[in-house]
Amino acid sequence: MVKVTVWNENRHEQKDQEVRDVYPEGIHGAIAAFLENEDFEVRTATLDEAEHGLTEEVLNSTDVLLWWGHIAHEEVQDEIVERVKQRVLDGMGLIVLHSGHFSKIFKTLMGTSCDLKWREANEKERIWIVDPSHPIVEGLGEYIELEREEMYGEHFDIPAPDELVMVSWFQGGEVFRSGCTYRRGNGKVFYFRPGHETYPTYYNVEVQKVISNAVKWAKPTNNTKPVYGNAKPLEKLDGMN
Amino acid sequence: MVKVTVWNENRHEQKDQEVRDVYPEGIHGAIAAFLENEDFEVRTATLDEAEHGLTEEVLNSTDVLLWWGHIAHEEVQDEIVERVKQRVLDGMGLIVLHSGHFSKIFKTLMGTSCDLKWREANEKERIWIVDPSHPIVEGLGEYIELEREEMYGEHFDIPAPDELVMVSWFQGGEVFRSGCTYRRGNGKVFYFRPGHETYPTYYNVEVQKVISNAVKWAKPTNNTKPVYGNAKPLEKLDGMN
Amino acid sequence: MVKVTVWNENRHEQKDQEVRDVYPEGIHGAIAAFLENEDFEVRTATLDEAEHGLTEEVLNSTDVLLWWGHIAHEEVQDEIVERVKQRVLDGMGLIVLHSGHFSKIFKTLMGTSCDLKWREANEKERIWIVDPSHPIVEGLGEYIELEREEMYGEHFDIPAPDELVMVSWFQGGEVFRSGCTYRRGNGKVFYFRPGHETYPTYYNVEVQKVISNAVKWAKPTNNTKPVYGNAKPLEKLDGMN
Amino acid sequence: MVKVTVWNENRHEQKDQEVRDVYPEGIHGAIAAFLENEDFEVRTATLDEAEHGLTEEVLNSTDVLLWWGHIAHEEVQDEIVERVKQRVLDGMGLIVLHSGHFSKIFKTLMGTSCDLKWREANEKERIWIVDPSHPIVEGLGEYIELEREEMYGEHFDIPAPDELVMVSWFQGGEVFRSGCTYRRGNGKVFYFRPGHETYPTYYNVEVQKVISNAVKWAKPTNNTKPVYGNAKPLEKLDGMN
Repeated sequence: MVKVTVWNENRHEQKDQEVRDVYPEGIHGAIAAFLENEDFEVRTATLDEAEHGLTEEVLNSTDVLLWWGHIAHEEVQDEIVERVKQRVLDGMGLIVLHSGHFSKIFKTLMGTSCDLKWREANEKERIWIVDPSHPIVEGLGEYIELEREEMYGEHFDIPAPDELVMVSWFQGGEVFRSGCTYRRGNGKVFYFRPGHETYPTYYNVEVQKVISNAVKWAKPTNNTKPVYGNAKPLEKLDGMN
Repeated sequence: MVKVTVWNENRHEQKDQEVRDVYPEGIHGAIAAFLENEDFEVRTATLDEAEHGLTEEVLNSTDVLLWWGHIAHEEVQDEIVERVKQRVLDGMGLIVLHSGHFSKIFKTLMGTSCDLKWREANEKERIWIVDPSHPIVEGLGEYIELEREEMYGEHFDIPAPDELVMVSWFQGGEVFRSGCTYRRGNGKVFYFRPGHETYPTYYNVEVQKVISNAVKWAKPTNNTKPVYGNAKPLEKLDGMN
Repeated sequence: MVKVTVWNENRHEQKDQEVRDVYPEGIHGAIAAFLENEDFEVRTATLDEAEHGLTEEVLNSTDVLLWWGHIAHEEVQDEIVERVKQRVLDGMGLIVLHSGHFSKIFKTLMGTSCDLKWREANEKERIWIVDPSHPIVEGLGEYIELEREEMYGEHFDIPAPDELVMVSWFQGGEVFRSGCTYRRGNGKVFYFRPGHETYPTYYNVEVQKVISNAVKWAKPTNNTKPVYGNAKPLEKLDGMN
Repeated sequence: MVKVTVWNENRHEQKDQEVRDVYPEGIHGAIAAFLENEDFEVRTATLDEAEHGLTEEVLNSTDVLLWWGHIAHEEVQDEIVERVKQRVLDGMGLIVLHSGHFSKIFKTLMGTSCDLKWREANEKERIWIVDPSHPIVEGLGEYIELEREEMYGEHFDIPAPDELVMVSWFQGGEVFRSGCTYRRGNGKVFYFRPGHETYPTYYNVEVQKVISNAVKWAKPTNNTKPVYGNAKPLEKLDGMN
């Protein structure tokens, strides 16, 4: 059974009644709720817990970590970011959602600014699937339509994705690479764009389907980890050395 | 349950005692035997059967097709090649083994010559895993060592793989991109290098593990197929048109 | 000096006054005209010439071939397609424009159906640059806006591009991967979406800039061609063979 | 004229007579010497200079930066690393050589550990070209052979390269992805493996050719930089917002 930890900054929910109205159990609560319907073992963790809820013990027993953050990226301690990064390189899957594009963990794994255009204007987003063969889009149609979302526009300053799975169309005239996979070390990373805190995006069953599929896709590959450092020759070096 | 069809040219087995000694049930028989130990439904098909054993009915009920051919690529009818190609574009997985690099189906899906260097000199091959996060290498160590194999060397005239999973070292001084994934339409394609007919390569448990993993990886993604052709606008075009 | 051949089907221009009004010298004439302002040696060739204007001699002295076709793809002889393909694999650059997505040469190099959604509705296209580091977008801004174009929409059934340079937004609600690079053999391939025959797209200076840049990018790499076939070992095989 | 800065840690040269014997003008001196034969404007900079020789002024007038470091990666100030990174994201090319795989600048741009296997055993390296179409291998043959080099072996913990250009074979039984391109922001990055301080690798004319080609490939693309942050809609949002 895949062990999932849903991490949320959980600050909008404490400060803004509007957000609390949409996500009374927090964004993490809403995400955990639909993941529990799958064959996953689901926990949540939030910024204000000790060690942000991401102790060594929690991370070591996490197969896939989901990350939602927005207004408090800077409050995430560098030590915890480093710990999460090591776990990804060691094999843990990581799914970064929406405004998590600017999280320390995503930026450090990407090596770029991860900057983009944005606009809050209640506009329509249509997320087109450009790789229908990918397991992350299992069970979906040709696109996902969200009546109201925040706009994110190109240029999105990320490395070229290993696989580009989805591209968004926005009513205001922009496009965006919305579903991107990366491999880092032994771990798999998926960035998925939608999910502004004032919209009920995480109740959309197709968005939920993408996230559930991504958890399955991102679970660790169980094999012998590579060995690094000084290495003896595997072949005889013929006395020339 | 994933439905697997193992296709083999099955000509060496009929002509060469040496090959029959290694693969008394044919290469297809040896591959089918270890795949049957997995949770797969396994059939075989060979060149000399009617329609090469690849009728519409067989292909339509195949999730993943494995392909081994060598000396009779030209005897495979173009019509059957086209049929297999359409099934791949429609979602069927395809695993091309060893000398299948020169099969019509692989060449037509790649768009290149698929040519390479080769040598039969009983030399050692060491297949290094360069993407340890990939599900195709689940359960493996850092490399697979084959005491005797045919050499295939670069330049291998293929499109850059979507994912490069394995690279071979050969005793005689060459390297080769030995595990390559591609997506074509709704289907997934995996090329895996080892498997010369005079060596017991398909009895190697690590080689078997790669092929079993590849079957799981290549199975079709179950979603709505894209619609092509003339399309009505999804947004109002404001009378300007 | 880069030697460029602009190939055009040149049928719309003969049949439709509307197209002739836009491109009195043919689409090939319009493209050749702006390429001649660069440091290129430019020729044109069309379908109705002997061997479609693509003799061995012409191709052997072509560094980069541009391809525009639409209503007569099937009239292009298979033998000429094969000849062009061999030249690409041998190093010649190929730039496929707009409806050339359905040309025999593009489909055979891609290995997929190259199908897509389309609509002629005089709508706006905005081509966003998603890879600002790429030489093909030298001298451009963040996007190219075309007031009226034919719509092409996803899913575009191509292999994942080696490099995705541009993505289009369409007024009617679709997106499209509009600038895609591929490497095939020793040759480079660029697909560029815009250019419907009834619009003055090839007079747009930014579209011209992309095509000129693409010619420079696609020119052959001058090196020793790989050798294929049976190969002697480069290292001593220690008597074990 | 492309402005090149060759950065070298320059510590082995001060401490080890053996290295000084091979590179009397320092590794930076040897690299600058052959680059000056090209149409480049070449400078050098070293660790022990003020700001490691990488002032804002120097970086702002550098098109392509080469980086060689080994035993003093930790002495490179984080502030300077950040400055170099910003210049890369802004468009400057970066060529990372050999043991620079463990430099702070390469690790921060990659997002992974960049770890590998290594061995100093005077063994043979054969660097195979796997993408003959790439401008970085212009003028080369099928491989570069180095009689004596340090071994670097897989797994090399890097993101999958955007383009894999070269793969090394080592006598002792390993392979390595030796020529790797990446795009980060507006900048291009090339990693090139060979160049251990005790071997005359940078006098090898084919190695020199690769580095010169890489400088040309990595030079900045001159275009409008993307704009990030809050963005007004480009299309009318129909009063719904």
